[in-house]
Order: sequence, then structure tokens, then C-alpha cells
Amino acid sequence: MRTIWARQALLPQGWAEGVAVAIDAAGRIAAVSRAPAAPEGAETRAILLPAVANLHSHAFQRAMAGLTERRGPDPRDSFWTWRHLMFRFLDQLTPDDIEAITAFAQLEMLRAGFASVAEFHYLHHAPGGVPYADPAETSARIAAAAQRTGIGLALLPVLYEHGGCDGRPLGPGQVRFGTTPEGFARLAEGAARALAPLPPDAGFGIAPHSLRAVSRPGLAAAVALRPDRPIHMHLAEQPAEVAEVQAAWGARPGEWLLANAPVGPRWCLIHATHLDAAEIAGLAGSGAVAGLCPITESSLGDGIFAATGWRAAGGAIGIGSDSNIRLGLAEELRTLEYSQRLRDGARAVLATPAQSTGRVLYQAALAGGAQALGRASGAIAAGNWADLVALDPEAPDLWGRAGDGILDAWIFAGDNAMVADVWSAGRHVIAGGRHAAEGPIWAAYRAVMARLIGA
Amino acid sequence: MRTIWARQALLPQGWAEGVAVAIDAAGRIAAVSRAPAAPEGAETRAILLPAVANLHSHAFQRAMAGLTERRGPDPRDSFWTWRHLMFRFLDQLTPDDIEAITAFAQLEMLRAGFASVAEFHYLHHAPGGVPYADPAETSARIAAAAQRTGIGLALLPVLYEHGGCDGRPLGPGQVRFGTTPEGFARLAEGAARALAPLPPDAGFGIAPHSLRAVSRPGLAAAVALRPDRPIHMHLAEQPAEVAEVQAAWGARPGEWLLANAPVGPRWCLIHATHLDAAEIAGLAGSGAVAGLCPITESSLGDGIFAATGWRAAGGAIGIGSDSNIRLGLAEELRTLEYSQRLRDGARAVLATPAQSTGRVLYQAALAGGAQALGRASGAIAAGNWADLVALDPEAPDLWGRAGDGILDAWIFAGDNAMVADVWSAGRHVIAGGRHAAEGPIWAAYRAVMARLIGA
Repeated sequence: MRTIWARQALLPQGWAEGVAVAIDAAGRIAAVSRAPAAPEGAETRAILLPAVANLHSHAFQRAMAGLTERRGPDPRDSFWTWRHLMFRFLDQLTPDDIEAITAFAQLEMLRAGFASVAEFHYLHHAPGGVPYADPAETSARIAAAAQRTGIGLALLPVLYEHGGCDGRPLGPGQVRFGTTPEGFARLAEGAARALAPLPPDAGFGIAPHSLRAVSRPGLAAAVALRPDRPIHMHLAEQPAEVAEVQAAWGARPGEWLLANAPVGPRWCLIHATHLDAAEIAGLAGSGAVAGLCPITESSLGDGIFAATGWRAAGGAIGIGSDSNIRLGLAEELRTLEYSQRLRDGARAVLATPAQSTGRVLYQAALAGGAQALGRASGAIAAGNWADLVALDPEAPDLWGRAGDGILDAWIFAGDNAMVADVWSAGRHVIAGGRHAAEGPIWAAYRAVMARLIGA
Repeated sequence: MRTIWARQALLPQGWAEGVAVAIDAAGRIAAVSRAPAAPEGAETRAILLPAVANLHSHAFQRAMAGLTERRGPDPRDSFWTWRHLMFRFLDQLTPDDIEAITAFAQLEMLRAGFASVAEFHYLHHAPGGVPYADPAETSARIAAAAQRTGIGLALLPVLYEHGGCDGRPLGPGQVRFGTTPEGFARLAEGAARALAPLPPDAGFGIAPHSLRAVSRPGLAAAVALRPDRPIHMHLAEQPAEVAEVQAAWGARPGEWLLANAPVGPRWCLIHATHLDAAEIAGLAGSGAVAGLCPITESSLGDGIFAATGWRAAGGAIGIGSDSNIRLGLAEELRTLEYSQRLRDGARAVLATPAQSTGRVLYQAALAGGAQALGRASGAIAAGNWADLVALDPEAPDLWGRAGDGILDAWIFAGDNAMVADVWSAGRHVIAGGRHAAEGPIWAAYRAVMARLIGA
């Protein structure tokens, strides 16, 4: 049993001064108690928060950051031209590359203050669609990366059946993703096996890619596969996607799910960007989490999520780093809030009379992330995994701050440099802002990048 | 004469490998030449860029960062409720406070990659509107801060006559700003005198605050005061401001200027947010710089600038850090581009067939900043001040990159941590990512904050 004592900590009932958090050998919080001074042998910190779960990542895409800003031959650059580049880029990756890039992205997630990640992964086969000897090769590589970084992992193997709503075959850039529903069941079993070497906080979920890429029976089979596990699906990132679904499935994506799928609290709807009023009311009320990826959704020109309407309808939200072009929890949250401000011509849009903007955003990301990963986390409470963040009290904008003002300073005036320590299920993965394995993880990533960019 | 040799440098004619930049004792670039290897005695760097000028700052507002996220009694939080908080906050500041906060903000500007700043300052009098013994007290304090940080300063004393377009008296939060046109002429002289202790790259300009705060004769007198100097004015940050101007002046702000003022290349129009098509065409064509402050304009819910239309009309743009809630040049530029993407549902919106998004943004900020400050800078060229930035070639997203890919990586995947060195008019103000006077500047700022936030 170890104890971390904090001068200020964010507890489920609110901010508290003088808090001792006891952590057991498995990495769970054993007890939380008030203590005016640090108990003997305790590690002490100034500011302690529950850590947020990153609910959506395609780790491989980290390697494309900054490489897609040249205009292609298309007169209009868009999500769709970017997706074409992304398919071509991913097609070069070997399993070693995947492991190296994933470890580097996870390292950056930890430095950004995330303690866990849901990895939504579809690069199932070798180039050309040739199966790997182990069908869960990619799952195993992602798990190996998590073993090196210590991040809390939720593996989300993806069902990807065809190249569009009309059932067209996979394009050349997609053949590495393809699975039948039967093959997917084996992948999901493989993902569960791939977690065996990891600590017990690791988990997995089921990820039918989107209504663009799955069939009705495929979706039904995937949803039925593991009724105890989270279900993640891309929902409505782009207007063209909504139109395609509407034409082929006879309804908008959210509308179709509400009428035909058991959408509810175990669902995480990624990119709930283009919803109409009925979809907002229905999906928010279902208890599903809206999986928002504000930086990526800005970078890809997806559009502005209806956060105010969704929250007014009681909807849950969480944060994903998606393309990983920037890893920053504070930056994700302020990007979300600022998108609402730009749309509405208003300030402190998500604040409530009782809680500041930063507090509302952080609390929502804690709850939504934990729910989406099916991970006992999101609060400093006995029984949860010890997913914790300590902020640097000497950072200029944190010095002398208390309560919600700490979160406001981190989210609106701060960045990753304020993150001093991160514990993932009790593993002290970031200390003094650094990870113990930074050197080798960066060296392996650099070797991959040297080949990919021809440097 | 000193020489900096760079493996890659951005020159007016484009990227070049092996560039020697000779800098004279005054801090001007004496010569730029191609050299395959570093000349003897040269400092060497991997990546050298011209540094951008920050064209709009209210340094004092830095101290409010993260402190305005609690909802006030107003049901709707907005620019206007924030402005009320800001007036109250500024009313507590002494000249010592101003100097300490300004130095800290300038330090962060330099670490963000800016080499110079236009300080738009209106805190002319003591609390209650009581004149200081030296009417240019604030100018002197800002100049003193610049002397400590080494930033290239353009002082912009502000003409602020009344509390609204209807000529109403200054409110209690505004009495420290008030000047008559005659008083303003003395302030402008005082600003010029306050620059005397600074190196010769320092300059000043004239800042009629906005059509909300000046009279017709006041504006005309200010514009006529120094025909050789830049004129900076807030233009159209909020819809309510446009409506107020329209009611009182008989035209929208840009429309009125086009018809009644000699708007042209020496003008910098801050917050050109709410313009109609005729204003875009007229003002862009006038040669004026649109002074954009993307982070602040997001934070205050101002709205999305029509960057695509403005650029298509040949308009110049530059970047200001305004409220200084975050100091980040890369973050400002990507916030600008992302606002366009969210509005248009497109990517690489400001890219051209010849130049990547990052290159277009950076080049525009260089040219617009230099023009707005009236500062010989914005390009590595003989005769300009040696305003330079060296980026860290070991940063993960810069490693192995070349040409425009460097700017894309910094702006879209990077942040201030990539800034290794900054020279302002040859003064080596940032080295290894740090400023030599960080310790005392931070200590002085902290002492001010301790009082202001009651810590």
C-alpha cells in the first residue's frame, strides 16, 4: 500500500484540502481520507486530479502530423482528400512500425495528462490485405506499446466490411482493414488474448467502424458479441457521410441507430458532429457518450459539435485525440469550448452558475472517458483505478490558484507543461513531466519516421 | 559584425540550404550569402526563419489569464461581461504592476517566437483618472519592460475620449484611459521620449481606440498627428459594436473609414471580424493590414474572420496576441486556419497550389506584422533588423523535415517548445528555449499576482 497526499485534490464531492489517497498493490484506490498533513511515508503533491481517459485514438496517424498541408490535385482540400492520403500512408506500415508509432503516441498522451486510451484500430492485415500469421497481430503490437509506456489500454478492434454504404468492395487503401463478421469475432478474441501480458486494468471493446463500413447483419453480430463491453462507432463526421447513410440506410446515422440498435450507455458515438434536433434529443437521452475529438475535428474541417444542445439534453461527452496531430488534453477542451464561442458569439458557454467553464469541461471529460472505456476511473474514489494527475504548482498560471481556478488556468491559459505527474492504475508513468523510457521510445519512432519521410 | 550560419533558412526567394547571415553592431542584417559550410567564427543553427512581429497586445491583460471563467450574474456571458471584469481588474494596477506584468508577457512572446510587439496601451492615468506626474508614465513602464526583455517595441498610445458612440462620459472602469485629443498629442510625444533609452529599432504609432471611443475631430487630429507612423484601431470585434457605430456614425465601421478616413497601408485594423462584402473588398484593397488575434477572438467569442475572402481580395493579415491569455505563435496561426476549416467544412483552406498552409500563414504573418509595426523586418534580407528564430531540429516533428514541411510541423503539430533561439534586432533574447532574465521577471510577476489574486 502506497499513499499520495495532496494539499488540494478534486474529489467526487468537490475540492478538498489535505487528502490522502491510499493505493493498493494492484493499482486501485484503496481509501481516500482527509488528513491535514501528509502521513509518514506518503508522497506529497500540491494539486491532485483524477486523470481523464482518451476515448478515441488511431495511434498510427500520429506519424502523419504536419505532413498533409500541401494541396493535392483536388481544387478543394477536405476530409476526403486527407483520408486518401491517410490510406496511402498507413499502407506502408509494418507491425514494428505500428508498435513504435503507438508507443510514441501513448507517451505523448501520458505527458498530456491522459492516463488511459481507447485504441480504435483497423490495420488488421499486412499490405495487400494478406493476413498476418496471428490475426490479432496489430492488437498484440498495441498491447506491447502499452506495456512499454504503462498507459491504461482499451483495445477496440474494428469491424470494417466494405468500402461504402452501397456495399462496394474495399478500395486499395482499405484492404488492410477488411474483416467479415466471422473474422471479426476471431479478431475480438485475439484482442482479448493480446491483453494477457498487461496489468488487469486493460480492457477491450467492440468497434463497428461506421454505418459506411458495416452491413446490417455485421453490425448486429458485432453488437451481440460481448454484451458486457463498450461499443464504439464513428457516427456523423462529415455531411457527405450523413447523406450517404441517409440514401442507403433510409435515415440519418443517429436516427437509424435510435430506431434499430440498442444504443445506450455502453455506446460511444465518435464524431457526433452533424446531428439534427431529434438525434440530439434521442442520442443524448439514450445515455450514450458523444466521443468528441475537437483538435482533429478542427483540423479536418468536420464542423462544430452542438455541445450546448447536447448538454442541455443531459448528454454525456468525452474527449478523444483521434488523429493525434496534437496531444493536449487542455488544448482539446479549450478547442471544444472555443468552437461553441465562435458559433454563438458568447463566452463561458459550458459554464454553469455553480461551476466554472474549466470545471464543467474537465468533469465531463472524466465521466465520459471512464464510461466510454468501461474503466473504473474518472474520480478519486475507493475501488477505482488510481488514474491520477498532479499539476505543477510552480507553473506561472497555477501559482496561488485554488479550486476550479486551477482547471480554468490549465485549460485556458495552460498546456502539457503544467502536467508534473501521471499515474495510470497506480503506475507512476510521468514524473517531473517526463517518462522513464522517453529516450528509447523516441529513438524507435525516429527510425520509423526516417524511412517514412525519406529523411 | 557577427555571423549566424544556418543549414536551412527561409529567404525572400524561398528556402535555401547553407545561408550565412551577417549582423552589424546596431542589430541590422548587413549581408545574406550562400555558404555550403559555416564560416569561421559563425554561430550555427539548423533551421533559421525570419521572426514575426506581434501586432497587437494589451500586456496588462496577461494577468487575467484563466481568471474569467466563472459565470457572473448575467445569464449570458459575453465579450461585454468580460470587458466589465477587465475594467475592474485593470483598475487595481500600479505602474510597478504594469511594468512587471508587461515584462512577463514580453518574455512569453519571445519564447513563442515573436521578436517584437506593438503594445496598444490605454492605462494612461492612476486609479480614479488622476494624472501621473509624467503623462507618459505607462509608456515609460512598457519601455522599461522592453529594456529588460530585449523585445523590439512599438508603443501605441491610445486615444480614448468617451464611453460610447453617443459621446457618453467614461464609465468608472474607463476613467484611467481618458484623453482629449490635445492630451493625446502630449501622450504621443511622451511615448516618443519614453523610447529614448531603448535601442534604435524601437518605434511608435498612433492608436485611436475605436469608433466607439473617439470623436470625428479626435480621430482626424490623431491621424494627422504623425503622418509617417502606423495607425492602429479596433475595427469590428462584436456585432453590437457594428450596430452601435452604424447608429451613431451612419455607416458600418469599415464602411465609414473607407468613406471618411485615409485608410491605407499605414493602417492596422484590429479585429476585422464583422465585415460585409463591400468592406472586405474596400479595406483589403486599401493596403491596410487586418490585425487578427485568433486565440483572443475565440476566447471572447468574437466570431470567425473572413480570411479566405480577405486573402482573395489581396488583403494583408498579421497576428496579435491581444489579451495574452495564451502566448503561442503556432497556436495563433493554427487557430486562424482551423476557424476557417470549421466554417467551410474544408481543409488546407489558406494553402495555395504552390505553398503549403503553414508557409502561407507564416509568410502572411511576417509581412503583415512588419508592415503594421512599420518595422524593417519580416524577411532575412540586408537592411532589415535581425529579427530571427531558430527552431529545434531535434523536436520530434521537426526531425528530418525540410522546406515548408518545417512550418507545417511547427504550426500544426508543434508549439513554443520548438523555439530554440530568438534574436530581436540582433539581441539574442532566447537561447536554448530560455531567456536570461526569466528568474527575476517571473519573481516580480508572481509578487504582483499574489496581491491581485489574494494568494
